[in-house]
Amino acid sequence: MIERILGHIDENMDASLERWRAFLSIPSVGTDPAHDADTRRAAEWLAGELRDIGFEAGVRETEGQPMVVGHWTPDAATAKAAGERPHLLYYGHYDVQPADPLDLWTSPPFDPQIVEGPNGPRMVARGAVDDKGQVMTWLEAFRAWRNVAGGPPMPVTVFVEGEEESSSVNLEPFMKAHADELRADVCVISDTGMPGVDRPAVTTMLRGIVYVEVTLQGPTHDLHSGMYGGAVPNPINELTALLAGLHDADRRVTLKGFYDRVADLDPGQIEAWNRTGFDEEAFLASAGLQQSAGEAGRSVLERIWSRPTLDINGIWGGYQGAGSKTVIASTASAKLSCRLVPDMDPQRVLASIERYFEENCPAGCRVKVSNLGCGGPIRVPTDSAFVQAAMRAAGKVFPNEAVLIGCGGSIPVAASVRRILGMESLLLGFGLDDDRVHSPNEKFDLVCFERGIKTHARLLDELAAKTEGG
Amino acid sequence: MIERILGHIDENMDASLERWRAFLSIPSVGTDPAHDADTRRAAEWLAGELRDIGFEAGVRETEGQPMVVGHWTPDAATAKAAGERPHLLYYGHYDVQPADPLDLWTSPPFDPQIVEGPNGPRMVARGAVDDKGQVMTWLEAFRAWRNVAGGPPMPVTVFVEGEEESSSVNLEPFMKAHADELRADVCVISDTGMPGVDRPAVTTMLRGIVYVEVTLQGPTHDLHSGMYGGAVPNPINELTALLAGLHDADRRVTLKGFYDRVADLDPGQIEAWNRTGFDEEAFLASAGLQQSAGEAGRSVLERIWSRPTLDINGIWGGYQGAGSKTVIASTASAKLSCRLVPDMDPQRVLASIERYFEENCPAGCRVKVSNLGCGGPIRVPTDSAFVQAAMRAAGKVFPNEAVLIGCGGSIPVAASVRRILGMESLLLGFGLDDDRVHSPNEKFDLVCFERGIKTHARLLDELAAKTEGG
Repeated sequence: MIERILGHIDENMDASLERWRAFLSIPSVGTDPAHDADTRRAAEWLAGELRDIGFEAGVRETEGQPMVVGHWTPDAATAKAAGERPHLLYYGHYDVQPADPLDLWTSPPFDPQIVEGPNGPRMVARGAVDDKGQVMTWLEAFRAWRNVAGGPPMPVTVFVEGEEESSSVNLEPFMKAHADELRADVCVISDTGMPGVDRPAVTTMLRGIVYVEVTLQGPTHDLHSGMYGGAVPNPINELTALLAGLHDADRRVTLKGFYDRVADLDPGQIEAWNRTGFDEEAFLASAGLQQSAGEAGRSVLERIWSRPTLDINGIWGGYQGAGSKTVIASTASAKLSCRLVPDMDPQRVLASIERYFEENCPAGCRVKVSNLGCGGPIRVPTDSAFVQAAMRAAGKVFPNEAVLIGCGGSIPVAASVRRILGMESLLLGFGLDDDRVHSPNEKFDLVCFERGIKTHARLLDELAAKTEGG
Repeated sequence: MIERILGHIDENMDASLERWRAFLSIPSVGTDPAHDADTRRAAEWLAGELRDIGFEAGVRETEGQPMVVGHWTPDAATAKAAGERPHLLYYGHYDVQPADPLDLWTSPPFDPQIVEGPNGPRMVARGAVDDKGQVMTWLEAFRAWRNVAGGPPMPVTVFVEGEEESSSVNLEPFMKAHADELRADVCVISDTGMPGVDRPAVTTMLRGIVYVEVTLQGPTHDLHSGMYGGAVPNPINELTALLAGLHDADRRVTLKGFYDRVADLDPGQIEAWNRTGFDEEAFLASAGLQQSAGEAGRSVLERIWSRPTLDINGIWGGYQGAGSKTVIASTASAKLSCRLVPDMDPQRVLASIERYFEENCPAGCRVKVSNLGCGGPIRVPTDSAFVQAAMRAAGKVFPNEAVLIGCGGSIPVAASVRRILGMESLLLGFGLDDDRVHSPNEKFDLVCFERGIKTHARLLDELAAKTEGG
């Protein structure tokens, strides 16, 4: 049966690519109100796809972008067996990052193009991998099961949000309000990566995040730097000093208590990571760099998988145009975020950031810190039956066995799922370091897309078989 | 004669205001190529005004914005006497600062409005005072002399540039190429201020300036802060650290040798300044501040008139839109400028800035420092006959005697005039601290405008009389 399903996936790949293209063509920039209509259109499109493959699915309203929820209930034939099989919840997001800076794209971000790359053809578009492409991997797996076997061999619930790139403000309220409807045995999430195109992975450690915007106000209006310079507080001078004070000479974050709850890695974990075949040089090269930076005395893998960070994501103030303007700006602003690791508490970190800026606000200035979103770090038990099934499934599709990895990114939903629904997550993603996630020319290699679909198809088979086995 | 001229000025004030309005209505933002046509239009308008009052005047081409040059030669009647009188050169600029941020203007910046203020009616527009309004004060004085007495009582040369707000790139080449045509006995400049509406002043100390743009590049493209954060150089983190390093805890500039040539003020000078009736509280209030900032152990007047500074005039990098974007930017940039005092050398300061960024450029980053303009500081001999004549003229027009002051701003032309034409400058301006120069809602009080015209009319009389006297 599974062989027929895999064959069906190959035979119908062109149609899969067309559906993927259609999804990518909708500029669902959830964080930008100007794209609200597009974002809703993406939700409607997705609900339609789910109904098309036999799911009972629809778009649900929230305070912000709508949620897509769908349910698959096995037919009578498989009902009995299905009863003993695990109930799966699939999470994803249909919103994408803003596409700017537009001038750095080689093709329009929402006009998907298939071009040749080192790993063969790749899809280039905003959202190609994050997360539309990855959502399509399990959606197309369901479709293959539907067309060959009538549908997935166990109950499946799907929920896909439109605010992941804008801090999932309405995700937890929705989960709380619909906990009974969403509860299952495990939450499958495809929003992570793997060490290489031939080396699949299950992610068992994720960093959390705290994201804030800081604005410092000095004079009530812009001033002439000649008339006032040297005698009044310059908000840009002051803000750069405050921001610089957030790191010490060893590039450690100076926020009070920042490292208090940072769990040290057990040697075994570092051991395991060293076996993932992580290529530090290639990783840096994917950013156009020859050398790494960051916290002293830590390897690149430790830094991105197991250490907390503080990055300024944006800064602005004063004159940014051509030529010179001798002005002292009235305000200066910055967006900054911390990546958190187990067992850091986002609320504590947020409070320490607020305290830092309040306590160090320069004389004559006023400071405002706005919370743009928080999410906790997570660690998945590596002995979970679902993790093991995913490793088997991936191992059968890819040339190499799957490995367990960490991830520098944040998937706050995983922490929410555990806290609110009492379920672990299975983080099975197919992205690569060079996918330019959140950057111009984001891409997803077709080979990763195809292997992702097949791995998800096999995962359903493994989970059905396993329970039959015993 | 002078009384009739002053009467004529009063009788024709409405017409003066109309001409001033026409000048202000031309958006001559010289630094912005999009306004090149407007900038040229302002030059043509000015040349027309000069021809209208008997000057031989025209627009001269440069590599950038055109120069307006005009000559007044006394007619036969006054020729003989005029021969013994000083030949005056008047400098000004017809370009204005960019008007942004536009949303903070209460009326369109190039739609001049007369509104009521604490000192009576005021003209609100970009360039109201800097420098179109001040140029009009001597232009209208010439017109009154023309209408009542046939013209100024001595030879007058006028040259007005269109690049003062963009570092006067073509000013010195033009002065060198036309030195013989421009040479006179003194250069009169109205681009400075006075302590109060009833307290005129002659400025005898001006700060110079060095203005640069710095860009720091890290990764070759924007990166996902989760995937890379903590392991790669973040250009915004690094730039804020570099900028913060330019000041120490006492807010002194840390650039090597920055203070080496800073002349200490003689107590007499500080004495004199304390007699100018400078109101520190009012000065700060004009910026919406209660307390001053800046170099430790210095008074506000010392800081703005006699101490060098370093201000960041603009900064930008990464995501500046609504919501959050977890990006590590590829580049970060800032515009910064130093105000220089006697006897600092702009070229040395520029070199020390370049060296600072090169020597401290973080591993994995590249830094670029662009020179956006330099100008030296100047000190005018207070015993000059021209300074004395200006003090007498102003004292007869204003309720109070004139005082000698310093100025935090920079008028690079004064240094160029001395070096290239071998002439001193007479800095006689009528601006106030609350004129919002370079800010939204820039204004010039009509009382200052009127007294400025009358002071310039009287200055011609004083300089003519003086030479007759002896």
